[in-house]
Amino acid sequence: MNSEDLFNNIKKKSSFLCVGLDTDYNKIPKHLLQEQYPMYEFNKRIIDATEDLVVAYKPNLAFYESMGTAGWMSLEMTINYIRKNYPEIFLIADAKRGDIGNTSNMYARAFFNNLDFDAITLSPYMGRDSIQPFLEYPQKWAVVLGLTSNDGAEDFQQLGMKGDKLLYEEVIRKVVSWGNTDNTMFVVGATKAEMLDSVRAIAPDHFLLIPGVGAQGGSLEEVVDHGMNRRCGLLVNASRSIIYKDGSNKFEIAARQAAIDMRDQMESLLKKKGLI
Amino acid sequence: MNSEDLFNNIKKKSSFLCVGLDTDYNKIPKHLLQEQYPMYEFNKRIIDATEDLVVAYKPNLAFYESMGTAGWMSLEMTINYIRKNYPEIFLIADAKRGDIGNTSNMYARAFFNNLDFDAITLSPYMGRDSIQPFLEYPQKWAVVLGLTSNDGAEDFQQLGMKGDKLLYEEVIRKVVSWGNTDNTMFVVGATKAEMLDSVRAIAPDHFLLIPGVGAQGGSLEEVVDHGMNRRCGLLVNASRSIIYKDGSNKFEIAARQAAIDMRDQMESLLKKKGLI
Repeated sequence: MNSEDLFNNIKKKSSFLCVGLDTDYNKIPKHLLQEQYPMYEFNKRIIDATEDLVVAYKPNLAFYESMGTAGWMSLEMTINYIRKNYPEIFLIADAKRGDIGNTSNMYARAFFNNLDFDAITLSPYMGRDSIQPFLEYPQKWAVVLGLTSNDGAEDFQQLGMKGDKLLYEEVIRKVVSWGNTDNTMFVVGATKAEMLDSVRAIAPDHFLLIPGVGAQGGSLEEVVDHGMNRRCGLLVNASRSIIYKDGSNKFEIAARQAAIDMRDQMESLLKKKGLI
Repeated sequence: MNSEDLFNNIKKKSSFLCVGLDTDYNKIPKHLLQEQYPMYEFNKRIIDATEDLVVAYKPNLAFYESMGTAGWMSLEMTINYIRKNYPEIFLIADAKRGDIGNTSNMYARAFFNNLDFDAITLSPYMGRDSIQPFLEYPQKWAVVLGLTSNDGAEDFQQLGMKGDKLLYEEVIRKVVSWGNTDNTMFVVGATKAEMLDSVRAIAPDHFLLIPGVGAQGGSLEEVVDHGMNRRCGLLVNASRSIIYKDGSNKFEIAARQAAIDMRDQMESLLKKKGLI
């Protein structure tokens, strides 16, 4: 999928919502635990309840790996289910990988070939040869950490470099030169909405993946004011605030309502900006 | 395992060798491909042929994930095999993880509880709350990327910060203050041996995990001259130069010989430094 396809899906659905499938075995409603693959069954219900309201899903690999082989199998089944039933959905592996070239090649094979994700999140610390292998797959995306939404973002990302740039600005500036707007996105936390201005100064046309709206406290309106571009350029992720809105056996209904609320806000913001 | 146990194992085996289990399905000798779990069968033979010569094994997660569920199962079987037969071995998950706190908690559970690794490699980009969950497991280790052995290490790690430190120095300085010498190591590439001096100035007593000796071209003698401390303080990793020394059905013999050659060099360097 390229950036034009993604923008078209956003317009069609009046939504730039990405739902994070941070599926925690310990938070799955009890009635699903008797199933052979409870994580998959939970995901399937969340997906069926929200697919018309979202443009992307983002499984968080840690939650699947914490369950070993059964978790990996649940992940494979989830991807296959989405691919078969909702082929227009953009699929992001939230994996934060990044290693030397021959190892990054293996990760690219794991996530782009075997699992058929459209995109994977990557850590930039190891530099160009850790990112490059992911850029060589046509229609696939590297989603590189720029400025994250957690407290630890202050430890290194926001440190000043020689020449007065901050580290995250230097990261985004360099990574922009390695790829293009059809294969590279950046993660920029919603809790730092005013810093989106500095990101947009360096990467005006790139898509940004924005975590931190919802459970982590960021404001959607601020994100749009500081980050939206002429092709939207935003995928806003919400995980816990949607999938765990309600822990009962009616969790799908609550998740759908939470997604509708976000889609409605997004629709009005897209209209306000004249994009739909 | 704490740092004293590790040093004792180094003295007992006259070796600070870590063998990287970067097990590539496409490089496994043909006669093993008829087995149900060829990656596990390959690992088992490499382990049996080298366990008396090494203090650590380091499976590289990318290679297992690239094979999906079967790969994950091969990894679990490999860990169980080592734990059952060679309980003194130090086991490092080469995973380069790092995410917000609740996600890092999940990775810690995956690698320390479910898979019973002793240590995991981590990327520091997301800061303290991405590392902290791993430090809370007694007898377990966070192995944080400092200065890596690849070309891309120049892109960010070696950039100058305000105040004249380089980024990797700032990373190591800060991470040192989060943990201690019994739960924190740093990855420092052997291809940058002279930079080990700057690392030792900041972290004189920590263990360092050194990749890049062997296939990537670093010199063992230089690493020891610049990096060894009074409790050795080094785990030197070799992957391809040992496990793929020979691709025939006698690969175990060649792997053993390559490990003996390294152990012999290590023994003579440990003697030269007066540690055994």
